[in-house]
Amino acid sequence: MLYSTILAGGSGTRLWPLSRARAPKFLHPLTGTDRSLLQATVDRVGPLSPAANVYVVTGTAHAAAISAQLPEVPAANILAEPSPKDSCAAVSLACAVLASRDPDAVMAAFSADHLIGDQDRFVEVIEQAAAAAQDGYLTTVGIRPAHAEVRFGYLKLGEPLRGEARKVAEFKEKPSHEVAAGYLESGQYLWNAGIFVFAVRTFLAELARQRPALHAGIQQIAAAWDSADAGRVLAEVWPGLEKISVDYGVLEGAAAAGKVATVPADIPWTDVGDFDSLGESLPTDESGNLLIAPDAEVLARDVKDAVVVSTTDRVIAVVGLDDVVIVDTPDAMLVCARSRAQEVKLLVEELRMRGHDARL
Amino acid sequence: MLYSTILAGGSGTRLWPLSRARAPKFLHPLTGTDRSLLQATVDRVGPLSPAANVYVVTGTAHAAAISAQLPEVPAANILAEPSPKDSCAAVSLACAVLASRDPDAVMAAFSADHLIGDQDRFVEVIEQAAAAAQDGYLTTVGIRPAHAEVRFGYLKLGEPLRGEARKVAEFKEKPSHEVAAGYLESGQYLWNAGIFVFAVRTFLAELARQRPALHAGIQQIAAAWDSADAGRVLAEVWPGLEKISVDYGVLEGAAAAGKVATVPADIPWTDVGDFDSLGESLPTDESGNLLIAPDAEVLARDVKDAVVVSTTDRVIAVVGLDDVVIVDTPDAMLVCARSRAQEVKLLVEELRMRGHDARL
Repeated sequence: MLYSTILAGGSGTRLWPLSRARAPKFLHPLTGTDRSLLQATVDRVGPLSPAANVYVVTGTAHAAAISAQLPEVPAANILAEPSPKDSCAAVSLACAVLASRDPDAVMAAFSADHLIGDQDRFVEVIEQAAAAAQDGYLTTVGIRPAHAEVRFGYLKLGEPLRGEARKVAEFKEKPSHEVAAGYLESGQYLWNAGIFVFAVRTFLAELARQRPALHAGIQQIAAAWDSADAGRVLAEVWPGLEKISVDYGVLEGAAAAGKVATVPADIPWTDVGDFDSLGESLPTDESGNLLIAPDAEVLARDVKDAVVVSTTDRVIAVVGLDDVVIVDTPDAMLVCARSRAQEVKLLVEELRMRGHDARL
Repeated sequence: MLYSTILAGGSGTRLWPLSRARAPKFLHPLTGTDRSLLQATVDRVGPLSPAANVYVVTGTAHAAAISAQLPEVPAANILAEPSPKDSCAAVSLACAVLASRDPDAVMAAFSADHLIGDQDRFVEVIEQAAAAAQDGYLTTVGIRPAHAEVRFGYLKLGEPLRGEARKVAEFKEKPSHEVAAGYLESGQYLWNAGIFVFAVRTFLAELARQRPALHAGIQQIAAAWDSADAGRVLAEVWPGLEKISVDYGVLEGAAAAGKVATVPADIPWTDVGDFDSLGESLPTDESGNLLIAPDAEVLARDVKDAVVVSTTDRVIAVVGLDDVVIVDTPDAMLVCARSRAQEVKLLVEELRMRGHDARL
């Protein structure tokens, strides 16, 4: 039986004004249904991990909202971090708490805010990754690149292992466009989609080898987690933990030591990076428009390939525009050319500088 | 001393969602200052008519809002119509009430929702028109066409009169583009800007000649206006009055009888027909953007020639768009290509069909 840990962190500033510090993107129904990205992630892992085997790591600010969205997940499985310490601490915390409850556990880690298609193949790929994890590998899922993307890190394929699994020869940083085009051409590189599967024992051993201080701190916290002492220990130890991603902190070093595998996957996958990619990922109407506006009254006259998102019950009238993003929320609205959707994060910076933290 | 009557009617559906049935365009500050179109109209006639000589004809629904915006205008000068009966009844009512108070009055009639530039020349033109009115003409102000506009009616120039005044040979309906281009080329046609100056005595005589029933009804109402009987007479007589424009109802027939003059005016004039013409009429920033958003926080990244209007305190963020109209109100928002601004009235029709009268 596989455990699934969902990392529910990050605010998604490129999805402002929908995504906010208090309501990050994983809480929003950006899935083509009324389920949030977080709920869709739990639904997706359902065939692999029943709710009792689902863990969520998140910030204390979001624990209550997550419990409300996931009533089927036991409260003891929602692990709240006092402050963000990047993905290495988050994955390590889940691993160590899980190891204290089930030392033989095999755990998959997923982001709470990704969209993944082809459910049957997804389950098959994770099962293959779990088999490689049983063989002692830290196993990633690598996505066959659909285009020369510069926003993601890449995995270089190594020698074949059992089933479809391959060793990972090397992790590659986000490339230039030229380099990304070469990766695509070669067929030897996969997108690092931030999906990992491993025996908790294997991961903690690598953590101890590569980051002994972080390992010691996490073990101290995990040992106290299910006791009355948990709050005190967490408050004491957490602030001093190293802030580093799990890729840099553990996986790159493990790959260099031949301990990382991947299962290449030809499945639709997106990190819902911005409103443009949202419009690419979800089904649209016959005019190419994506409407996520359950309570709004939308009037569109001669509008094509638009992305319209609303959390209000206002009328949204659009006339004679193509390739536009319109987002309506109670205290802020965005109107943006789809080709410029990445720049939304710069708006968030500007609003912060102007002192509008309440709108962020 | 000239009297000025301001006709404050019409809802301005092409300026939805700013302009509403309950808050028509003349109540909004679409003037480049914090004064509403109505207030700017009163300011404009100030050198000609002190506030005691200003009259306003409007619907009962707007009388209170108008009094609040114009505290200097005597309440007795705000004439409320029980129902809209087009401009002939409105002008006739003002004429008749004024005649009962000052039979020798000369009155100018203005729309409450026009923008007019070149204040000094404006005053000069109205003074010339008033002189022609003293000579017994129903006098219009004709605007020298700035382009071949099809949205306006035209006046054909006739023989010269005193000063700059000319007879009006003929009124012309809204032309086709080809006909409008010919008018522009010829130099013999002026826009009918809906500005009229006449002795109330002259107007009422023409009304009696051409529309005796309307004249009789209006006289009955005016005779009772300043009495305790006013409400009863108005309620009895008003519903039966003919609904017709002052152009069709009186001026065209008067022109045919040689009784209409015009003073040609080379002044900037617009009826603020839609958000696109608003952007053409008011001063813009260095990027060509017009912002009328006193309480909003507007962030514009690489935005040119936009018209942004807000009545809320929300953040409005715009990225990478040119020639766009964005209007934000508490219960409805509009995003529209400037070239399509005329179609906004069709949105209003669609909303009415969908039963959203509260948003209109």
